[in-house]
Amino acid sequence: MIDSVLILGTGLLGASTGLALRAAGFQGSIDGWDKDAKQSQDALRLRAIDSVVPDPLAAAEANQLVLLATPVFAILDWMEQLAPVLSPIHLVTDVGSTKAQITEAGNRLFNQPGRAAFLPGHPMAGKEIGGAAEADATLFQNAVWIFTTDPWISLQKEGDISPEAATFGMDWTQWIRAFGCRVLELEAARHDELVAWVSHLPQFLATALTALLETEVGDASELKAVGGRALREMTRLGSSPYSMWRDVAYTNTEAVASALHALEQRLAHLRENLRTPELRDEFELANKFRKS
Amino acid sequence: MIDSVLILGTGLLGASTGLALRAAGFQGSIDGWDKDAKQSQDALRLRAIDSVVPDPLAAAEANQLVLLATPVFAILDWMEQLAPVLSPIHLVTDVGSTKAQITEAGNRLFNQPGRAAFLPGHPMAGKEIGGAAEADATLFQNAVWIFTTDPWISLQKEGDISPEAATFGMDWTQWIRAFGCRVLELEAARHDELVAWVSHLPQFLATALTALLETEVGDASELKAVGGRALREMTRLGSSPYSMWRDVAYTNTEAVASALHALEQRLAHLRENLRTPELRDEFELANKFRKS
Repeated sequence: MIDSVLILGTGLLGASTGLALRAAGFQGSIDGWDKDAKQSQDALRLRAIDSVVPDPLAAAEANQLVLLATPVFAILDWMEQLAPVLSPIHLVTDVGSTKAQITEAGNRLFNQPGRAAFLPGHPMAGKEIGGAAEADATLFQNAVWIFTTDPWISLQKEGDISPEAATFGMDWTQWIRAFGCRVLELEAARHDELVAWVSHLPQFLATALTALLETEVGDASELKAVGGRALREMTRLGSSPYSMWRDVAYTNTEAVASALHALEQRLAHLRENLRTPELRDEFELANKFRKS
Repeated sequence: MIDSVLILGTGLLGASTGLALRAAGFQGSIDGWDKDAKQSQDALRLRAIDSVVPDPLAAAEANQLVLLATPVFAILDWMEQLAPVLSPIHLVTDVGSTKAQITEAGNRLFNQPGRAAFLPGHPMAGKEIGGAAEADATLFQNAVWIFTTDPWISLQKEGDISPEAATFGMDWTQWIRAFGCRVLELEAARHDELVAWVSHLPQFLATALTALLETEVGDASELKAVGGRALREMTRLGSSPYSMWRDVAYTNTEAVASALHALEQRLAHLRENLRTPELRDEFELANKFRKS
């Protein structure tokens, strides 16, 4: 069973995972590191981690499980650095928002004889404001935590992962269930296509809407006052940080562009039918999605 | 002071106004009527109204204040029917979502010597699901309640409204403040332009997004499970009823079409810049709107 965890990237998701582990009764050690010392200090103060390590690569060797909780490109960088220094008794996992490139790198750099194991993961949870100070032990409750791994059993049969790593993988999945998550396995390509619709499209749409409102009415303070719950909700994700979403835009460009283009066409269709019965059809379709 | 109110249309907003009046200490009578008997019975059961009247026009004559709480076209119909039967000691007001046509009709049919007074109003509050059963005494707390009237004082000076009606108008405004609302006066045209951005655009956008998701992924139940708070929030207004929004689309077509077109262009701009630094600018503008 896992009794030592290193969290690389102790922002919102990393620190929340530390807190969720403790809330679920995890008794082992939790080390942490962040390139931004404020984040690791905030995580330490909140007891999301027990200590801030001075040397993340040395600490990775000394821990059984390494959780990569940074934006996607930083995860890919860590994978390159960790693969040569870890051994088959280590399990590396992540919380990155797109999975095709990370899963490919996992199979190329890990999950081979003599290498550590890599389990690509993605919790469907977050907040519009990042940082350890926002961390919450309950962030993952009732969320879906997706894994996009090749079947663990076949990897073990081929000798691509060790029995220790396989056990850590099963144990990690159990902790995630203990956070209140539903675990879902998907192929990486299917994951990226799916989240383009249900996560990336809502985010980039909220960014475009909010940027448009800032341009059109940002200097009219009465406008914001007038907007009610609908406006607050539809622009909440306007606060999301570029640093994270840039990597999503770069690593899932085609699927996101395709979803955005479909929405542009849908908006044009609705606009052209503001006074025709087609508008009713759009409302009925929308009502149906919400009911089922 | 107002001591008798008739609510025509006892759905979500009408019944919530009745409940808010009672919660604020209103001691007078509150009659109600709805073309859907279930709505008036629900409102009666919730004590949002004291009685369901059999004849709404006769009841209007017998009450001091008539609140029109239906979709916009039904409000315009009621105004045509009420104008000839009411007298200068009556005040009619409404909660309609667009104000240009209603304000014009108010000045044409009311607010003249010998006619009742009309005060066009619009509380910026609501829910995605209508009906008296959803009514809530606190629905208007912290909301803005807009009026788009010509200056009351000048109407009184010209003899276009009676002293009684002017007093009722001031009293009504006080009750609305007692609901926890901020009262804002705007020109009708400015109101319609403003709400096109902060209310109608978010609604029609949510409808288009939700209809698109139903079309693209409606049969993939795992997709909805995967979506988190962001998806739920961005599609909440997908439940909104066509019956109400059809009238908004019809009576504010130009401003809504213009806002939708601007959003289409903004989305295309973002889509074309998923891998350029322009994406950062969009996130920064969006962040700014949310901060100020």
